Formats: sequence, structure tokens, C-alpha cells
Amino acid sequence: MEKNFGSLLKKGRKFSVNGSVWIECDGQRFFGPGPVELLDRIRATGSISQAAREMGMSYKKAWEIVNRLNANTKSPLVQTSPGGKNGGGSMISAEAMLLVKQYGELRAHFREFLSRERSKLY
Amino acid sequence: MEKNFGSLLKKGRKFSVNGSVWIECDGQRFFGPGPVELLDRIRATGSISQAAREMGMSYKKAWEIVNRLNANTKSPLVQTSPGGKNGGGSMISAEAMLLVKQYGELRAHFREFLSRERSKLY
Repeated sequence: MEKNFGSLLKKGRKFSVNGSVWIECDGQRFFGPGPVELLDRIRATGSISQAAREMGMSYKKAWEIVNRLNANTKSPLVQTSPGGKNGGGSMISAEAMLLVKQYGELRAHFREFLSRERSKLY
Repeated sequence: MEKNFGSLLKKGRKFSVNGSVWIECDGQRFFGPGPVELLDRIRATGSISQAAREMGMSYKKAWEIVNRLNANTKSPLVQTSPGGKNGGGSMISAEAMLLVKQYGELRAHFREFLSRERSKLY
């Protein structure tokens, strides 16, 4: 981009570049920052309800995300065991950890992309 | 990304990578696909109402976008002349055309980025 592009703006204002990336499955948004954070918190807490609470997300919404993920994969990404004396627990599969890792790499590349594009603005 | 990442999915389903990019001004979304298309249609039709109609956008919404753009730039990106016998007209400034061009370059780079990331999925 041309230098001094920022000179279009009123004094003191600054341009930047931002964006988001996600993984699609058959053209539908499948995996982005929300599901990644949810899976990561389920991994850490062993509980869908606890993970949802930490994210300020309803339990219903968290289950919708989990069901949508599980509906597209060969084996469930989140496995839940029935509640008993100590309550049920949820854990994420090795495949889910792989997805989280892949998305992390995509995000890292995207941050580099944004950084390059920002440097072209001024 | 590792090859055969797609093997996580049920048979026949395909992963892809998608996303969006925009230009921010002082941390607020300022310029993205919507404003670009609106400016481009104002340029082509000479009319904010015609541009809005073509996009299935309300006249009010189109004006909100125009006002937000104009509020951040040294000189207005969209200039409107009063209606007369032949109705008023709107035109976009040279600075607006520069912004449209810059965003076009950013989008082109982003498409290349997405294409590279997609090729890593399979």
C-alpha cells in the first residue's frame, strides 16, 4: 500500500488492519475462536457447564457448539460420562486437541499476515 | 498443518479456511466489504439511495455508513449536492477511491493467504 495512506484521516487518528479466520466444513463455519476456547476450557475443567460459565456463555449454547462439532466428525470431539456420585465429566478427544492445535497455527499465521499488512499502511 | 487433517471429518465432508479482513480507525471497524461495495456503487450510480437499493440496504443504513466514514476523514469521502430539478447527486472523492483501492489490495493479499492455508489442510 502507498505510504501516507494514513494522511486521509483526521489528525491523531490511526488506521489499522484487523480480521478473523475460521475453519469451515462443507462451506459452513465450523471452527473459530469460540469453539477453540470452549474446547480448551472443557479440557482444563473437565466440565462443559464450568467451561460455559467461564466464558459467560449459556449451557445450552455450549451444548449446541459441542453437538455441531460432534455431528461433523468421525468420532466425538467431546466425550461426556454420565453424572454419578461425583457428577459427570467431559473430556476432549485427541482429535479435538489436534483441531485446537491446527487452528492455533492458522491464527499465528494470520497474526503475521495482519502485522505485514499493518506495516504497509504507514 | 499436518496432512490428513481432513480425515477427522465424516466421509465426504471437506474442511476449508475462510475469514474476513477490515481496516480499523482508532480500534473501531472502519472499512470493510460493506462500505467498499457501497462506495463503489455510489461511484457507479451517482446516488446513495440507488446504491443502497442495489445492495438491499436501507437508505438510513447507507447514510449511517457514509456519515461514519466522513466523520473520520479530513475531507468527506462522499459529497452530496442538493436535489434540484434533476434530483441531487452523490459522488465519491479521490480519497475514497484510494481507500477502495487499498482495501482491494488487502483483500487480494488475504485471498492469497487463505489459498496458502487451505492447501495445508489436505
